[in-house]
Amino acid sequence: MTYRSGRHFLQIPGPTNIPDRVLRAMDRPTIDHRGPAFADLARDVLAGLKDVFGTRSHVVIYPASGSGAWEAALVNTLSPGDKILAFEHGFFAVGWARVAARLGLEVELVPLDWRRGVDPAVVEEKLGADRDRAIKAVLVVHNETSTGVTSRVPAVRHVLDRLGHPALLMVDTVSSLASVEYRHDEWRVDVTVAGSQKGLMLPPGLSFNAISEKAWRARGVAKLPRSYWSWDDMVEFNASGFFPYTPATNLLFGLREALAMLREEELSNVFARHGRLAAATRRAVAAWGLDVFALDPVEQSNTITAVLLPDGTDADAVRRAALERFDLSLGPGLGKLKGRVFRIGHLGDLNELMLAGTLCGVEMALVAAGVRVRRGGVQAALDHLLGGGD
Amino acid sequence: MTYRSGRHFLQIPGPTNIPDRVLRAMDRPTIDHRGPAFADLARDVLAGLKDVFGTRSHVVIYPASGSGAWEAALVNTLSPGDKILAFEHGFFAVGWARVAARLGLEVELVPLDWRRGVDPAVVEEKLGADRDRAIKAVLVVHNETSTGVTSRVPAVRHVLDRLGHPALLMVDTVSSLASVEYRHDEWRVDVTVAGSQKGLMLPPGLSFNAISEKAWRARGVAKLPRSYWSWDDMVEFNASGFFPYTPATNLLFGLREALAMLREEELSNVFARHGRLAAATRRAVAAWGLDVFALDPVEQSNTITAVLLPDGTDADAVRRAALERFDLSLGPGLGKLKGRVFRIGHLGDLNELMLAGTLCGVEMALVAAGVRVRRGGVQAALDHLLGGGD
Amino acid sequence: MTYRSGRHFLQIPGPTNIPDRVLRAMDRPTIDHRGPAFADLARDVLAGLKDVFGTRSHVVIYPASGSGAWEAALVNTLSPGDKILAFEHGFFAVGWARVAARLGLEVELVPLDWRRGVDPAVVEEKLGADRDRAIKAVLVVHNETSTGVTSRVPAVRHVLDRLGHPALLMVDTVSSLASVEYRHDEWRVDVTVAGSQKGLMLPPGLSFNAISEKAWRARGVAKLPRSYWSWDDMVEFNASGFFPYTPATNLLFGLREALAMLREEELSNVFARHGRLAAATRRAVAAWGLDVFALDPVEQSNTITAVLLPDGTDADAVRRAALERFDLSLGPGLGKLKGRVFRIGHLGDLNELMLAGTLCGVEMALVAAGVRVRRGGVQAALDHLLGGGD
Amino acid sequence: MTYRSGRHFLQIPGPTNIPDRVLRAMDRPTIDHRGPAFADLARDVLAGLKDVFGTRSHVVIYPASGSGAWEAALVNTLSPGDKILAFEHGFFAVGWARVAARLGLEVELVPLDWRRGVDPAVVEEKLGADRDRAIKAVLVVHNETSTGVTSRVPAVRHVLDRLGHPALLMVDTVSSLASVEYRHDEWRVDVTVAGSQKGLMLPPGLSFNAISEKAWRARGVAKLPRSYWSWDDMVEFNASGFFPYTPATNLLFGLREALAMLREEELSNVFARHGRLAAATRRAVAAWGLDVFALDPVEQSNTITAVLLPDGTDADAVRRAALERFDLSLGPGLGKLKGRVFRIGHLGDLNELMLAGTLCGVEMALVAAGVRVRRGGVQAALDHLLGGGD
Repeated sequence: MTYRSGRHFLQIPGPTNIPDRVLRAMDRPTIDHRGPAFADLARDVLAGLKDVFGTRSHVVIYPASGSGAWEAALVNTLSPGDKILAFEHGFFAVGWARVAARLGLEVELVPLDWRRGVDPAVVEEKLGADRDRAIKAVLVVHNETSTGVTSRVPAVRHVLDRLGHPALLMVDTVSSLASVEYRHDEWRVDVTVAGSQKGLMLPPGLSFNAISEKAWRARGVAKLPRSYWSWDDMVEFNASGFFPYTPATNLLFGLREALAMLREEELSNVFARHGRLAAATRRAVAAWGLDVFALDPVEQSNTITAVLLPDGTDADAVRRAALERFDLSLGPGLGKLKGRVFRIGHLGDLNELMLAGTLCGVEMALVAAGVRVRRGGVQAALDHLLGGGD
Repeated sequence: MTYRSGRHFLQIPGPTNIPDRVLRAMDRPTIDHRGPAFADLARDVLAGLKDVFGTRSHVVIYPASGSGAWEAALVNTLSPGDKILAFEHGFFAVGWARVAARLGLEVELVPLDWRRGVDPAVVEEKLGADRDRAIKAVLVVHNETSTGVTSRVPAVRHVLDRLGHPALLMVDTVSSLASVEYRHDEWRVDVTVAGSQKGLMLPPGLSFNAISEKAWRARGVAKLPRSYWSWDDMVEFNASGFFPYTPATNLLFGLREALAMLREEELSNVFARHGRLAAATRRAVAAWGLDVFALDPVEQSNTITAVLLPDGTDADAVRRAALERFDLSLGPGLGKLKGRVFRIGHLGDLNELMLAGTLCGVEMALVAAGVRVRRGGVQAALDHLLGGGD
Repeated sequence: MTYRSGRHFLQIPGPTNIPDRVLRAMDRPTIDHRGPAFADLARDVLAGLKDVFGTRSHVVIYPASGSGAWEAALVNTLSPGDKILAFEHGFFAVGWARVAARLGLEVELVPLDWRRGVDPAVVEEKLGADRDRAIKAVLVVHNETSTGVTSRVPAVRHVLDRLGHPALLMVDTVSSLASVEYRHDEWRVDVTVAGSQKGLMLPPGLSFNAISEKAWRARGVAKLPRSYWSWDDMVEFNASGFFPYTPATNLLFGLREALAMLREEELSNVFARHGRLAAATRRAVAAWGLDVFALDPVEQSNTITAVLLPDGTDADAVRRAALERFDLSLGPGLGKLKGRVFRIGHLGDLNELMLAGTLCGVEMALVAAGVRVRRGGVQAALDHLLGGGD
Repeated sequence: MTYRSGRHFLQIPGPTNIPDRVLRAMDRPTIDHRGPAFADLARDVLAGLKDVFGTRSHVVIYPASGSGAWEAALVNTLSPGDKILAFEHGFFAVGWARVAARLGLEVELVPLDWRRGVDPAVVEEKLGADRDRAIKAVLVVHNETSTGVTSRVPAVRHVLDRLGHPALLMVDTVSSLASVEYRHDEWRVDVTVAGSQKGLMLPPGLSFNAISEKAWRARGVAKLPRSYWSWDDMVEFNASGFFPYTPATNLLFGLREALAMLREEELSNVFARHGRLAAATRRAVAAWGLDVFALDPVEQSNTITAVLLPDGTDADAVRRAALERFDLSLGPGLGKLKGRVFRIGHLGDLNELMLAGTLCGVEMALVAAGVRVRRGGVQAALDHLLGGGD
């Protein structure tokens, strides 16, 4: 083993930095998942999660990655051959649609510009054309982790409402929950999908569904086979503080602590902090003379910035320089963006100086990798942070 | 919060006591699951798991509970309506069969005496009657966690061989792997199912499939829908040290440490230790004048002892006394055994004095709960441990 | 490295088992010892310690072992050549007297029977003979860690009072504080000495002086050279929440947690628990047909039991068997007791089943080492614990 | 409790950031300090420390702060009234001299310019005038933590040699050991004093003496009273792997890990890293238009930079802004430097981006506190780090 001095800077778009308080909370013996202490734990985290999702309805917790929660959203509400509408607005949007297709659903995947969010006008066009209401669900990724674009979920909801279309609205908030504003009930989302390893500041291994009453009723007629993902079992057992199968107890210890920390900081402050740090990041990118991949300022993500490099430069070379010379992990371009962008994660347990150190690393890695940039990005970010604005 | 002095004795049949080394190994920042350090981790744990399963073939790791690995075994190898043979020899055997039925398989669930393991003669009768080879898979729970009975998997394999029956043999080793002898390849099991929270000394949250070549080929024709559980994606990504979706990185840190510890102690010593502690436990039960639930000495589990109480006594009252007065968690009777047995878990990270303390707690709880027992159980156990026998 | 399965049983008379809560509290980054968060920490632990000592006067905290706090008690109150009275009632009583001699004090060390505590009649004789009040301090070890004998401090105080003797009364509570009743103010002790690694459930590295007003005034004329141990600096800096030199911050994190745990359990319950577990231990010793080293039942320690072996048997052979075969650490005989006794520590973070496991280990080690004992010690202890008596 | 997101930046001149590996190594049960596992630990850390000090002679470890090791150096080698020569070249140099005076030594404290190191010419003048060799020891602080000035110890040694003066040379390396080059044997230092909480990356609570053969012999005639600090006991017990009184076991666990990490990185790389980061820091200070307090470039410390502010500005206001707005702890001016300088610690477990984040915080705090500075300090530092030079 060779020791590399100092802390690693993990600034990928997730998993994010795990606070010591969360790590320490998990660092304890597992308890009996059928005993009274466990029931208290379960009730605590379920209640806390509802606050974070902004819902009074059901939330379920899976010992699984976020991909499992994608699957759960579908199998609990749909039947083989059901038609769903999805949008190709990023790597994960495509991924979710592929899961749907594998499960035997008929997916209409609408191509979109990855540099923009889901366009409500396109949603309107597609749903408007669906005269016989064949579309049973609309899938939207709130914050595309691959592009750093945040879609306007309320606007999509508005389309459904205006058309009186009965499709379920399903939203992936994997890289937005607990970092940018999200309101499951108020926005009338039917199923919200999330995971533990981003804004919730946990290691990966837990994922979630928040479920509207409409979605809950849909499970009664949904015929896709399901067992592990079954909401019924979960909700039934959860009512008394237990789980239908062995839960990931130590991750739940961490979740309880993370929820307490979010309460202490208060969600509105958490969102403001993410906004401030994201704005500083975008100032740096602009000062370097580079482009934020997300084109529309109102859609630029407060949790992830994908930086588009000029043609002829290799984003992965920047990432390699960052990792090898400065012990900084950045996210790669995914799918068709491979080599063209790198992604800075600025979500979760983060503060001004962690971000400043990150941007210093990015600036040096750009130079080291031979990308022609103007210097001054870091200083622009500091100016923003000093202003205390955004 | 009120502090209760001293360590809790977690002697349920799992989750088991997590060694400090494992807890500490997980208590570190998550790393980039697409980076080079992660690939080393993945390769290490996959190789180590193969040794523990006794296989040179494929092993896959799910961020999921054991129930997920049950589901994975089925959806990767079978098609809707396929017939499978299962045995009602305990609560978890029934549970696995129910998962199969939910997924659209046709399950023949053969009633058996819960106090005994799967009877090879019954297997022979059932498979022998299956002239047209309609049965596609046979499900066996190696060590029934609810009864403390270990079934003779090689004898079942022998039946299949003698009949030349092509059904896949699937075995649940959730409460036996890394505690009692198990040989996936040598016993020609097709799919072995296991979880992290028992002999592997980890918190719950990971589960596993070991896959024979025959099972691997079966996935090519299997038509049950699958995405999260798909072996193809797993094996393809694992080849380069990665995963198709975000893995439960910190649990993998723990797994690496647990595998190192098993290597240090050596599996043969681990098995001998479990045998020694289990025998001491059974001596105690006999000395108390109570019955081990498992009737056949060769089937009495080396990881779990279910203790049968006389009619008119309440096993749950014993458990309550153990928990409230002595901070000792014991396992309840499950399903039809509720209130009739309690279960002592003696697997995982355990030594003579931890077991001795546990048996002292059981003896006192029996007395405290008013169960008429002879004293002397602890002393019988100590005699056995002093003999150093097995 | 070779892994030995299960937890080590650390049942020496200290350091004691450290609760996970304390270990986790120390497992965090050190903070600025001149910053506001530190001042809060310092005030918390100083206030909490006063409750544990039973004092409203000064308590000081040294980054040092208990031996340092011995030295501190002396150098802050005495001058070169001052006469002090000490009693040879155990290994540590002799050790403290030797420290005094090394520092240039004139020590009268009165030989006593190690199987008994400090005899108030002998104190009376010695002090009564001291017509010119040459004796400036009387040193008593409250609970002799080497013998398991608890001296009656209030009776000694009574002697001083009756004689009107002005000597300072200094008491070592290293192995009694926070485990058996102790009242610095009420018993009018002048300097109490304690350490972190026994009843306070911390690792070694902190030690303490509780200081009466009389002792505080004595420092004004005391001429022994002092710098590190100087009470003046400590008390002056502590007033604003700081220390005259870098404090052992992470141990203070642990101390804060340990004090919180003692508050949660409540000191009276802590004392009762120690009494109950000690009585069970003595029942076991009697049932084995062995002798508790402490002769007088009212002086038998509730934190440590020294077990006297018959002539011709080797206590260290028992300890070796305990360690090698059962992973149990017991305390050796010290000084002239080497090989004649072994010592069981039953203090700190301990409960019934931890003690039961320990006694099982002792019983087996006695047998394994060939000591002729009756069996049944463990059962006698369980009977006591079941009775719930004290 | 209120959570403040992200990691605190602890960039005081020590205690330094403790690596997770060290924290985790300490987060385990204390072991029997008289058992075989402890002896292995003791031998490991003693051997490793000798490598770090650059000595083949004795090293002793105290459960104490660095101030204790100051005291130990003196009491083991000197007698009451002995004359020693010390230099007022900083706050800690004065502090060590005050300890000497309190212990009854006659201290000649030579006033010097705090912005410079100990001047060998002054040493020569003072020792040359000491015809009757009354001066028994010369005290030098290698790296003044209060000023960021590194004194040239070999040059001082050279003076002693040239004069043939027999005084012992005692050197404080509290803020230099394991960070900048130091060679106890080669430089023929007699007693080196160090602590755990700086370059050794541990929490405070351990301190050290490295002892030349000459110093070792001096203890034979030294008459200052000593017990806790006695080298004789330490060296005698250490020979078999034990300690004369309870050692701070968990800190020793951490020390073993820290020594392993220094070996992995290799001391020459550790020194180069400190040089590189220090140079970047000085570039930043210069670019801001401020002065490094240390005047002579060859004496500017590679572990600490004291930044001198223009008259009329308050260094403590900068520190407050850093702490309150950016969660960054900086060191205050001590003694006569209070309010005139702030100090950046850049030692221990540190890398480029941690330093970069720190310098961003300093730059913003300077602006926020209204200090008139040029911007561009961070960029100058990054330029230096990019150059990879030193």
